[in-house]
Amino acid sequence: MAGEFALIDKYFARPTPSAILGPGDDCALVQPTPGKQLAVTTDMLVSGTHFLPDTDPKNLGWKALAVNLSDLAAMGAMPRWVTLAGALPAVDEAWIAAFADGFFACAKEYGVDVIGGDTTKGPLNVCITAMGEVEPGRALRRDGAQVGDQIWVSGRPGLAALGLAHLQGRVKLPEPWPRLCVAALEKPRPRVALGQALVGIATAAIDVSDGLLADLGHICERSACAAAVKLVQLPHLRDVAGSGDSYDADLRRFALDCQLAGGDDYELCFTAPGTLSLTIGQIAARLELPLWHIGEIVAGEAGAVTVYDPDMKPVTFERKGYDHFAAQA
Amino acid sequence: MAGEFALIDKYFARPTPSAILGPGDDCALVQPTPGKQLAVTTDMLVSGTHFLPDTDPKNLGWKALAVNLSDLAAMGAMPRWVTLAGALPAVDEAWIAAFADGFFACAKEYGVDVIGGDTTKGPLNVCITAMGEVEPGRALRRDGAQVGDQIWVSGRPGLAALGLAHLQGRVKLPEPWPRLCVAALEKPRPRVALGQALVGIATAAIDVSDGLLADLGHICERSACAAAVKLVQLPHLRDVAGSGDSYDADLRRFALDCQLAGGDDYELCFTAPGTLSLTIGQIAARLELPLWHIGEIVAGEAGAVTVYDPDMKPVTFERKGYDHFAAQA
Repeated sequence: MAGEFALIDKYFARPTPSAILGPGDDCALVQPTPGKQLAVTTDMLVSGTHFLPDTDPKNLGWKALAVNLSDLAAMGAMPRWVTLAGALPAVDEAWIAAFADGFFACAKEYGVDVIGGDTTKGPLNVCITAMGEVEPGRALRRDGAQVGDQIWVSGRPGLAALGLAHLQGRVKLPEPWPRLCVAALEKPRPRVALGQALVGIATAAIDVSDGLLADLGHICERSACAAAVKLVQLPHLRDVAGSGDSYDADLRRFALDCQLAGGDDYELCFTAPGTLSLTIGQIAARLELPLWHIGEIVAGEAGAVTVYDPDMKPVTFERKGYDHFAAQA
Repeated sequence: MAGEFALIDKYFARPTPSAILGPGDDCALVQPTPGKQLAVTTDMLVSGTHFLPDTDPKNLGWKALAVNLSDLAAMGAMPRWVTLAGALPAVDEAWIAAFADGFFACAKEYGVDVIGGDTTKGPLNVCITAMGEVEPGRALRRDGAQVGDQIWVSGRPGLAALGLAHLQGRVKLPEPWPRLCVAALEKPRPRVALGQALVGIATAAIDVSDGLLADLGHICERSACAAAVKLVQLPHLRDVAGSGDSYDADLRRFALDCQLAGGDDYELCFTAPGTLSLTIGQIAARLELPLWHIGEIVAGEAGAVTVYDPDMKPVTFERKGYDHFAAQA
């Protein structure tokens, strides 16, 4: 009987040097760093809603952890400990081994210990809770944006949504975009170093999981302000639609839609006073991660995000973010 | 569009006085008590595996939190904060409202704040992570039992399994047992006060979730010792099989099986030196909670648990605990 307990032991009980007591007891025990605050986040990933049922389990393992570390990154917290709970329809040892591979690769990359878990029978479901530490009063919250702040975003949001469309055969991307976009979808890299670098600099931050406009809207709601985003300042995604004779105007529009409203990117969107733009540029250089100044925080209806075209005329987009219930109801 | 975010706000965003930042940001923020250790546990409950699909959502809300607080109780930790993630097949507002009712009733009873969560579409699944605090080096672990220690259990393990059998029509219990057993199943009371009272007294502890013998076996495995349990010292469950003419010998045997191997009770099983038995009796009186001295820790194969009949002959039981994969494969 290779039951639940044996499986957990075999694949998920690894050394936990940062814990006083790791998996195998009623609780794990950890010693918080004196004086630090604890940032806590939890995410549930469901087959068919958050990932394709035939997703490579190794990629899924990486991503399941990465999206939680991304929430810690968005607070400027240092990742410390995670718990993992999962339901599986049946014991599939190869699947479990591959999932564990990806999961622990991500844990190692970002220096977190997996201190506890729970495995059970049921429709495929992965739930992770991540804990990180941050100096008191220094966490990057959503509610600190000020009118006049610059709005920034890291990397190239939209790639993950393009990667999904590519895998589903809805778009045909020119080289080298298929590989880049699928990697962004399957193996997102939480911006942990960026989040910590932004402590004391950013006035507000969020990770782009629902889509750039939707997540920027969340900052604006909590900060009681509005945002003006300029199309021309968005990260360059021109080549994705080809060039010259092969230029595809429909694909260009779709890529723009992905950039503004596609979820699953896990880049950071943040605000900061314009006086710090040089410092932010230095952070970008040090981390070798492009940071784009895409607009400004303005006075206006709380949560309102307006996109302006090159003539400074407002542009309307229908899709404002990803809602699991609304999207598939 | 009464989507995900609106639902979360309406039913699950409540005041979190013990947190610096509650639900609504990328992470919650809490300030651990200086010097304390953090005990962390996570549990996933799946429809059809852990609860009947038609379970009253209010009871489910209570129980989902209670089983996590029970893990904190088993460590002697003071419950502080919890996160809640859930998947639902569809937006059923009445169901969600009732679940929240039960969940927050339990949270209030045991003084924990719900600091964060995640709601998504998918087969019914509830995943909770609970955090508590304990003085460094004082947590009740599974690995501290010593040969010669007495073995104790609280309350009346077995009632929950009897309650399940009753609901499924597999047994007919005499009054007042149906109500008592169903309450034990649906609204378990985590032994939080007992766990804290046992700090400095118990050498090892576990909560009875898999079944008394199986969970006592977990203590013995981790403590590298064996256990001798005496049938005559088990909590009294005689009346459950009726008396006089109505006495049902099959039911008596089934009740004993539930007592030794039925899961889902969330009583505490613990070990302590015999010199502290009077102190333990005083704790029982103070908490108005029966504590039963059911056997002794003995030298032997690590993890071996033997049950002795009144003639001190070993008794054999087939069912040793509940394994989600093995039980329903």
